[in-house]
Amino acid sequence: MATYNTGELLKKINLPSDLRAKITEDELPQLCDELRDFIIDVVSQKGGHFGASLGVIELTVALHYIFNTPYDKLVWDVGHQAYGHKILTGRREVFHTNRIYKGISGFPKPSESEYDAFAVGHSSTSISAALGMAVASNYLNEKDRQHVAIIGDGSMTAGLAFEGLNHGGVENTNLLVILNDNCMAIDPNVGALKEYLTDITTSQTYNKVKDEVWNLLGSISKFGPNAQAIVQKIENGIKSTLLKQSNLFESLNFRYFGPVDGHDVNYLAKVLADLKDIPGPKILHCITEKGKGYQPAEAGDTTKWHAPGLFNKDTGEIIKITPKNPEPPKFQDVFGHTIVELAEKNDKIVGVTPAMPSGCSLNIMMKAMPNRAFDVGIAEQHAVTFSAGMAAQGLVPFCNIYSSFMQRAYDQVIHDVALQYLQVVFCLDRGGVVGADGSTHHGAYDLAYFRCIPNMIVSAPLHEEDLRNLMYTAQAENHGPFSIRYPRGNGSMIDWKTPLKKIKIGTGQRIKNGDDIAILSIGAIGQEAIKAITELEKDGLSIAHYDMRFVKPIDELMLHEVFSKFDKVITLEDGCVMGGLGSAVLEFMADNDYTATVKRLGIPDKFIEHGTQQELYNECFYDVAAIKKTVKSLVQKQTNKALA
Amino acid sequence: MATYNTGELLKKINLPSDLRAKITEDELPQLCDELRDFIIDVVSQKGGHFGASLGVIELTVALHYIFNTPYDKLVWDVGHQAYGHKILTGRREVFHTNRIYKGISGFPKPSESEYDAFAVGHSSTSISAALGMAVASNYLNEKDRQHVAIIGDGSMTAGLAFEGLNHGGVENTNLLVILNDNCMAIDPNVGALKEYLTDITTSQTYNKVKDEVWNLLGSISKFGPNAQAIVQKIENGIKSTLLKQSNLFESLNFRYFGPVDGHDVNYLAKVLADLKDIPGPKILHCITEKGKGYQPAEAGDTTKWHAPGLFNKDTGEIIKITPKNPEPPKFQDVFGHTIVELAEKNDKIVGVTPAMPSGCSLNIMMKAMPNRAFDVGIAEQHAVTFSAGMAAQGLVPFCNIYSSFMQRAYDQVIHDVALQYLQVVFCLDRGGVVGADGSTHHGAYDLAYFRCIPNMIVSAPLHEEDLRNLMYTAQAENHGPFSIRYPRGNGSMIDWKTPLKKIKIGTGQRIKNGDDIAILSIGAIGQEAIKAITELEKDGLSIAHYDMRFVKPIDELMLHEVFSKFDKVITLEDGCVMGGLGSAVLEFMADNDYTATVKRLGIPDKFIEHGTQQELYNECFYDVAAIKKTVKSLVQKQTNKALA
Repeated sequence: MATYNTGELLKKINLPSDLRAKITEDELPQLCDELRDFIIDVVSQKGGHFGASLGVIELTVALHYIFNTPYDKLVWDVGHQAYGHKILTGRREVFHTNRIYKGISGFPKPSESEYDAFAVGHSSTSISAALGMAVASNYLNEKDRQHVAIIGDGSMTAGLAFEGLNHGGVENTNLLVILNDNCMAIDPNVGALKEYLTDITTSQTYNKVKDEVWNLLGSISKFGPNAQAIVQKIENGIKSTLLKQSNLFESLNFRYFGPVDGHDVNYLAKVLADLKDIPGPKILHCITEKGKGYQPAEAGDTTKWHAPGLFNKDTGEIIKITPKNPEPPKFQDVFGHTIVELAEKNDKIVGVTPAMPSGCSLNIMMKAMPNRAFDVGIAEQHAVTFSAGMAAQGLVPFCNIYSSFMQRAYDQVIHDVALQYLQVVFCLDRGGVVGADGSTHHGAYDLAYFRCIPNMIVSAPLHEEDLRNLMYTAQAENHGPFSIRYPRGNGSMIDWKTPLKKIKIGTGQRIKNGDDIAILSIGAIGQEAIKAITELEKDGLSIAHYDMRFVKPIDELMLHEVFSKFDKVITLEDGCVMGGLGSAVLEFMADNDYTATVKRLGIPDKFIEHGTQQELYNECFYDVAAIKKTVKSLVQKQTNKALA
Repeated sequence: MATYNTGELLKKINLPSDLRAKITEDELPQLCDELRDFIIDVVSQKGGHFGASLGVIELTVALHYIFNTPYDKLVWDVGHQAYGHKILTGRREVFHTNRIYKGISGFPKPSESEYDAFAVGHSSTSISAALGMAVASNYLNEKDRQHVAIIGDGSMTAGLAFEGLNHGGVENTNLLVILNDNCMAIDPNVGALKEYLTDITTSQTYNKVKDEVWNLLGSISKFGPNAQAIVQKIENGIKSTLLKQSNLFESLNFRYFGPVDGHDVNYLAKVLADLKDIPGPKILHCITEKGKGYQPAEAGDTTKWHAPGLFNKDTGEIIKITPKNPEPPKFQDVFGHTIVELAEKNDKIVGVTPAMPSGCSLNIMMKAMPNRAFDVGIAEQHAVTFSAGMAAQGLVPFCNIYSSFMQRAYDQVIHDVALQYLQVVFCLDRGGVVGADGSTHHGAYDLAYFRCIPNMIVSAPLHEEDLRNLMYTAQAENHGPFSIRYPRGNGSMIDWKTPLKKIKIGTGQRIKNGDDIAILSIGAIGQEAIKAITELEKDGLSIAHYDMRFVKPIDELMLHEVFSKFDKVITLEDGCVMGGLGSAVLEFMADNDYTATVKRLGIPDKFIEHGTQQELYNECFYDVAAIKKTVKSLVQKQTNKALA
């Protein structure tokens, strides 16, 4: 077993109780250094999220030092910053299995540890979840229990966080919100709230100014009784109105503390200890730095160091395995370049992303056409309704949202876009299993949850060329809401920059003819079918392959062809089998009185953990081997029947 | 054709251009009175939303008087307050068809009028939509265009509104947000924001205090040069920090104006005219009163007057048609009484509603057990994640959300509840077509969008007894997320208060045997099947009827029985046919190699407008007549085949 840099103090800590029992206050800074070293050592060799965890080392240590975890509840928002927390809560020895198939999750998971109070992966849930716990503790008469939500300034821009504050402000609970303010989401944070936080922080400290005003008002009273009366009046006026409402969070009835230096562990410990004694909802504003304590990350591009992959920890050089031969591009980059190409010709096109410009490659457009590409912050709901507003005025927004995050804008897609038949193009990146991010991030449901929405066009390209052509088609005229989903990672075409052409809505393509059985696939997972078929045909089987390209409207002409010819059919999708392409095919059959044996391959009806995409295709039984096995068993069955 | 009270001034106005050309400023108050009278006259005879529209009469008139509609864009939030707007924008003569089948919609609809800038029905979309339009106008170089979002204080509590503000504060657009502050959602508004707004309003006016402070600081300077220097310093300190951030909305970079009297039409017109000249994002805080100008509504229960039904406008007496015989209860009331009954025995049970206590009858529990029932405001996302937090601590939350509003918490159901297998009971009221509220409110998709989520139990009771028993079952032990959906309106049992008993998860019930054909229904729409079967059997047909009760897990034992016996099957659901019960049945058939002719009845793949539920069952072809017709055509087919 590999060993990793484990400092003397860190070695002593198997659980937070060790931290509280064995580490003195004076030793806390050294422990932070050791924890940081350990993370750098492991992540540089094993990969994973990086900058966020380094930024909260001191907070993590101080929280477990002061609070009585797991009785007290720490709710990490998003959760990719919880590596230090995992290491201090019994998972140091397995930390190197982080994000690896069958290893520990990259996010907090109650099923993994009682110290993980709430499962997470998507942003902005922590305040609501911690409030729910705090209200429960009150009701259960466990009034000594503390509940801490640790949330970044990026996560704070999502509406859910605001909803939690709005309710939290009127419940008298032991709720402490720690605003971990590093001015970043994965990309730099945006929006008015971020500017406001910066204002607070840069105008010296907010409290200092407050104090100064009070001191000055005090000193005026030296100017005689008249002045005193005036000051009194001013004080009352300010107190009753201005100061009380002088802070956004105080407006919402949270007591506001800060900003404080989030990298001074001893000061943090002191402040947290004090805050434990203050009842009611409160917020501690901590200023931190993503990547803190690792010089290349501090000095370099924070977005790059969010999850840098493997790197040489001594030089800070990110290890890139240069492939010998040219590789197909990432789907996201095909999107990023193609939207610019299209926008150059169609001046109605605009781009929208909720805080994922580098993740979805809209940053290419933001650079090329800054006035036509919008990063709206972590705000999927707003991204969609904002797009709808632009579409209502005749623009053609391409709204790019990861499949699993689109779940958060489901109502907006139905109510604000589809109902009005607005021309919004939804580009769903990370459709299908995503790999190491795991169960919270798999784009498993979009084909099913979009298919039932009237007016929606639901498509998925087999390869780069079709992604480009679907994008081209979607903007060419108003087809109403048009969704195009594609997976994380690389496509299959080296020469992907093909000429743009229209695709007839609701048409698939026959990839190859065959006689024994037909495979109907949707999206890039069809490449697995192509590989399987190539291998199977070496064994003498004759397999037809149809790329459906649209789940809705489905290509009925093609399905008539299929079911007129074949009585054994496999459907293949990188999405849930319940309600997706397979179900659409069964509905077509029922509506058209076809009978055939149909085997549906796709994500089964359970939550899938992390692993590489190939590992998960295998687990979900739709990799090349599974397709081959399914074909053989169906053809075998046919043969057996024929023999009988 | 009926005529309604139409005053002299109102008669002159067919479009807002008439208002601007023909009405003097002095006449505006009279026009408001006439508009109010007209609405009272029509709504008292025809029904519809009431209080909200009366509260914005002056705003509506002032907006169309000052802004150049439809070039300038008015985006009404929720939209049930837009009756005055409809009447002034060419729909006075058809206003009496409001919410009636084939009549005008109760909500703004661009397909109905160019004055309706954005379709709406759900809350809190207006800021994002108007911002999208404003950004589009900037980009299209239509910089003189104004964009106004009119949003209530209730709607402002939803996260989407906050997301819109956060983005709007950093875009330099002609965006005016009018905060229509009446301290109400349908029920009294709740949360910290509401308290904050009340604070601003009750501490005289916020601006007056601000002014007073400035005046006093000014007067201090009379105390000599030292005092002047001090005042200067205070001013700078306050200006740079306190005042700039002295208001929640100013924190988000909106210029804040108000509060103003929302019932002084001349003052409103003046203020709006002034605001047109101020560039950038701004908010006007108007204090209004729901039901304003109609004495019984002003003096009475505001919630009752939200949508009172028919009433005698002279006496304010709400017309109740007392049925001769006792009637079955509303499903919502069965929920409301049963949760109290269950909670009395199980102290882990708590109730949660996002701003619908009277709409879903959780108000019964709020009254009986105020510390165990939570109205969290219009905040569906938070309602679910807050419930998840409580469930994580061992409580059993019943989270009641209308089916169409649950779309807004879809990610929270997946990510915060289902993934953790938490015991949250989702009671989905208004499942299926809802009637007069129309396309935005039909609960069409929940069976489909919940069915694809792992761990979810998806159920729907045929009648009151099963609703009670499903609720009983859901709380008895942890089955993970458990959804129970039921329709708007009354059930079918007079004696509904049956003894509580457990239902085995995933079991349906055979309602009756039969030989010719089987009907599989889910939920209360099964009552239509019962009626159809009674009539059909008079014609000598023999029809089996199975109430599936669960869409997931589906009763496989029962389906084996069905498909072993029948080769003609009808599925029936008050939900979208795409992805719902019918698809689940087809998936079962495919997985188990059954063949049969299956006809799926349910909501077709299009948006359905408003009408009574029976009118819509008919339009969607799943009323009694449609079921009969379908049965006959299938049996006929069989007979023809047999004869052939």
